[in-house]
Amino acid sequence: MRYELYYWPEIQGRGELVRLALEEAGASYVDVARRRGSGVDAMSRMMDGGKRPPYAPPFLKAGRLVIAQVALILHHLGPRLKLVPRSEADRLWAHQLQLTITDLVKEIHDTHHPISSQLYYEDQRPAAKRYTREFWTHRVPKFLGYFENVLEQSRGPFVFGRKLSYVDLSLFQIVEGLRYAFPKRMRRYEKEIPRLVALRDRVAGRPRIAAYLRSDRRIPFNEWGIFRAYKELDG
Amino acid sequence: MRYELYYWPEIQGRGELVRLALEEAGASYVDVARRRGSGVDAMSRMMDGGKRPPYAPPFLKAGRLVIAQVALILHHLGPRLKLVPRSEADRLWAHQLQLTITDLVKEIHDTHHPISSQLYYEDQRPAAKRYTREFWTHRVPKFLGYFENVLEQSRGPFVFGRKLSYVDLSLFQIVEGLRYAFPKRMRRYEKEIPRLVALRDRVAGRPRIAAYLRSDRRIPFNEWGIFRAYKELDG
Repeated sequence: MRYELYYWPEIQGRGELVRLALEEAGASYVDVARRRGSGVDAMSRMMDGGKRPPYAPPFLKAGRLVIAQVALILHHLGPRLKLVPRSEADRLWAHQLQLTITDLVKEIHDTHHPISSQLYYEDQRPAAKRYTREFWTHRVPKFLGYFENVLEQSRGPFVFGRKLSYVDLSLFQIVEGLRYAFPKRMRRYEKEIPRLVALRDRVAGRPRIAAYLRSDRRIPFNEWGIFRAYKELDG
Repeated sequence: MRYELYYWPEIQGRGELVRLALEEAGASYVDVARRRGSGVDAMSRMMDGGKRPPYAPPFLKAGRLVIAQVALILHHLGPRLKLVPRSEADRLWAHQLQLTITDLVKEIHDTHHPISSQLYYEDQRPAAKRYTREFWTHRVPKFLGYFENVLEQSRGPFVFGRKLSYVDLSLFQIVEGLRYAFPKRMRRYEKEIPRLVALRDRVAGRPRIAAYLRSDRRIPFNEWGIFRAYKELDG
């Protein structure tokens, strides 16, 4: 199967969680919107037409299926890329964890855009500062503390123990992204989440992931994506 | 199968989307936290213990499985309650739509709590006003316009055409909730979404749903849930 991934070409964003899974599995895929020429037009056409249009990128074309929503894309890819155990209970558990990551990603996005994605960051800066303070006081400990506990229960290094899953790849991206966006806060906080940091290191050391991170397929972090480095938010 | 639903006993909240599915199907279930006595304690114990604790309510106990996240609960229940067509493509489509409803529900919540769920509404009122204005200008047309188009493509009255699915029950709740929280704004807006309004009426008229809505199992809307009626936000 040759997959087609449709996502904004200039950012890691939510699409990165899908890219990491495809890369770790060595899957054959085209990052459609990053093709020179008419890539983004092709993406727009998929959203505007058809009987079952996706609401938003990223979406994946897998044969005749078009699947949107990151967690659902990964739920679909998981067994096909051998990135989730086979049993129904394990697949549900992975999907449930990924949906909690989805919730966390939305809140990370809202640290810089708490009022509206339609407004510039500069036009919602006081709200962003306040949101970010609350986020680091209450939400980061709740979310990352939860995943740290999941890793303790699984005995690590991954959420299913010794076998890597797509959830681990997304948790890697969460740690990387928080380090990029909030270097000072994250440096102070990491002592609370040793298992997540160890997971991050394990994932970074996997040959295909390491090669991907060095390649130009990995878009650098920047201030258009989910994780944005604004010094004034890094209190 | 006798299902156990775990959710806050005083609010409709996210749990309501699961309750509506169980009620429409005539499923056998216990709303655990609403039992007199130790219901909420039982819910807390489930979250604090075990190898695979849920991150947050609602969660469903189905035999030995414990499933959290509304969209995933409904994905699991769908075929068992005959609230989704059988094919893989149709199940994916329903799940994808439900995940978009999940995103919408979060944004509806944020109209009154844009900065933090840990703060009172009164402590984030200016941000809430601004968020709500943006929400009604940009987000409601985008989300509800999307679902209106889905109903146009399916030829209605439901998202799968003539057969009701759990997605339709959730869309019913979205229309009901927006009417409760934003009666003036919604009255003006409803002419843009005739298919969603017709779907709402169809769902409300189904015998089991109608009986449920009249029963004391249906918790009234109130100012602790997702949909809150604050006059100053209803511009």
